[in-house]
Amino acid sequence: MRAVIMDAPGEIRVGEREDPKIIEPTDAVIGITATCICGSDLWPYRGVEPANHTPMGHEYVGIVEEIGSDVQTVKPGDFVVGSFVISDGTCEICRSGYPSRCVNGEFVAATIGTQAQKARIPYADGTLVATPGQPDEDLIPSLLATSDVLGTGWFAADAAEVGPGKTVAVVGDGAVGLMGVLAAKQLGAQRIIAMSRHADRQALAREFGATDIVTERGDEGAGKIKELTGGLGAHSVIEAVGTEESFLQAIRSTRPGGHIGFVGVAHEGVNLPMDEVFFSEVHLHGGPAPVRRFLPDLIQLVWDRKINPGRVFDLTLPMDQAAEGYRAMDERRAIKVLLTL
Amino acid sequence: MRAVIMDAPGEIRVGEREDPKIIEPTDAVIGITATCICGSDLWPYRGVEPANHTPMGHEYVGIVEEIGSDVQTVKPGDFVVGSFVISDGTCEICRSGYPSRCVNGEFVAATIGTQAQKARIPYADGTLVATPGQPDEDLIPSLLATSDVLGTGWFAADAAEVGPGKTVAVVGDGAVGLMGVLAAKQLGAQRIIAMSRHADRQALAREFGATDIVTERGDEGAGKIKELTGGLGAHSVIEAVGTEESFLQAIRSTRPGGHIGFVGVAHEGVNLPMDEVFFSEVHLHGGPAPVRRFLPDLIQLVWDRKINPGRVFDLTLPMDQAAEGYRAMDERRAIKVLLTL
Repeated sequence: MRAVIMDAPGEIRVGEREDPKIIEPTDAVIGITATCICGSDLWPYRGVEPANHTPMGHEYVGIVEEIGSDVQTVKPGDFVVGSFVISDGTCEICRSGYPSRCVNGEFVAATIGTQAQKARIPYADGTLVATPGQPDEDLIPSLLATSDVLGTGWFAADAAEVGPGKTVAVVGDGAVGLMGVLAAKQLGAQRIIAMSRHADRQALAREFGATDIVTERGDEGAGKIKELTGGLGAHSVIEAVGTEESFLQAIRSTRPGGHIGFVGVAHEGVNLPMDEVFFSEVHLHGGPAPVRRFLPDLIQLVWDRKINPGRVFDLTLPMDQAAEGYRAMDERRAIKVLLTL
Repeated sequence: MRAVIMDAPGEIRVGEREDPKIIEPTDAVIGITATCICGSDLWPYRGVEPANHTPMGHEYVGIVEEIGSDVQTVKPGDFVVGSFVISDGTCEICRSGYPSRCVNGEFVAATIGTQAQKARIPYADGTLVATPGQPDEDLIPSLLATSDVLGTGWFAADAAEVGPGKTVAVVGDGAVGLMGVLAAKQLGAQRIIAMSRHADRQALAREFGATDIVTERGDEGAGKIKELTGGLGAHSVIEAVGTEESFLQAIRSTRPGGHIGFVGVAHEGVNLPMDEVFFSEVHLHGGPAPVRRFLPDLIQLVWDRKINPGRVFDLTLPMDQAAEGYRAMDERRAIKVLLTL
């Protein structure tokens, strides 16, 4: 099958990989309908993480082609969305709401690679969710978004305990931050402050529900949030970058007792000064989003056309042009790139 | 009046300070009945924080002597317990449950110093709680404990979302950690694992409700917690030390989606690797304990003789012998020292 491979940092190629097959009775093989490029794919692209003939991609929607003998909830022909983390759905950690840390979990990015014509999905029952029927063509970008970028923004808002009457600040205007804005709106936030200095992203943030835009960053940005909240800071802050600067900006934008939901992937060397965290008295929760927990609800919201997260894709290319998609995201010419098959 | 003064690190003296007076109409002046030495008093004692003729002490019970014209909830003659943070009780942050970060707050330790015969307590209504009557002599240590050490351990357990059916691990066997054990027991935890290598503290932990003792520290200790919890880690972990090692021990002892309540005062230079925090997927909450939130309930539990947190004081001295009290705690000959007046 055809698949995107990163031979080395910055070197994207669409080449041949062996067709996936059912190995375990809990597996499904799906034909990928659409996939996309994640902000986290830029880490190896930029050499921050290793890349060595690496199969790429972990976001996906598609049609089930074949299932193992133990799979019960999806069947060949079903249109499915899956999480970017494989999860068995039955372990104590999955049942407590954290399929992203399933005891049998694995990252799709690490071994599977869904920027490809097909993929083998282990623990299909615990990982995939079938849509109510075959989706209209125009719903596909939004369904694809639920697989990671919306699910991640949603988790951040959930972890930040966004809710009615609350003021929410969003640090980071990438695709995940924008999805955080959308999630905050859906979860009933009263005021949503997007922190962004790019006109196109500000516009999209407003479309998704942002009530205010703050263009300042760092301590100046945090000061602005305080100014907008009677000196107290936001109730809920979404951190969607993952650097020390963005964490500090988030902490300094949150009121005492407030909540930070962080989903920006922190890399080695990003350290948080605990004396500041201590005296800030905020709640912190984050990590790889347990998307599977939210998928049934998110799919339904998309299906009912109540949300349109697919708007976050501002460039669509055939998978064969994946290299151009990576370049566009790396050069910030695109917020997020959808790849069709 | 007589008061404990730290002239320089390690130099404790009981000398004269000016008698406090009512300054603001929201003030009360109390006569101190009992006070104590906090683990955090050892930071300046050991030179980690500055000390320069510093009035000491922030835990206290006593009798109201005089009130300002606006004070409504306490009156002269009342026996009162107060928090170690002054709070107005009316600001939005106080009302949301975080009097320890009151917009008009100040640390008692910073300016007042309750290792003394008397103290002026600003915002008396927001800071003090009167007991139901004059306490029996034997209740005084336990009432004093609610002022900080129990309130702090209780907050840690609350922040760690301790509750029925949960397994709790407690990192740190100092007075606060031991109070965390007591709080966990009261909050209905099913299993309470105290991490301690000192026989006397292990015994007290068991008395307070610990069901298991783990003597290993660091990664070995965390490994032991995993072993005791089917490989998953504890649901709730109380961090009561404040070092990088103890934070990592806490994080590595917590299951994904679990909660860490941290109350060990983190000093400058204590940094947390965010990549590890990210992938651990735990909840983190802590800081200076909002003791005033819990005081009414804790006082009632003591009053009804349902808890005996005063057991944590294993050395009682007259205030004039404060220097020996500091030495005993510094040399770990005492867990916590009560000073009588």
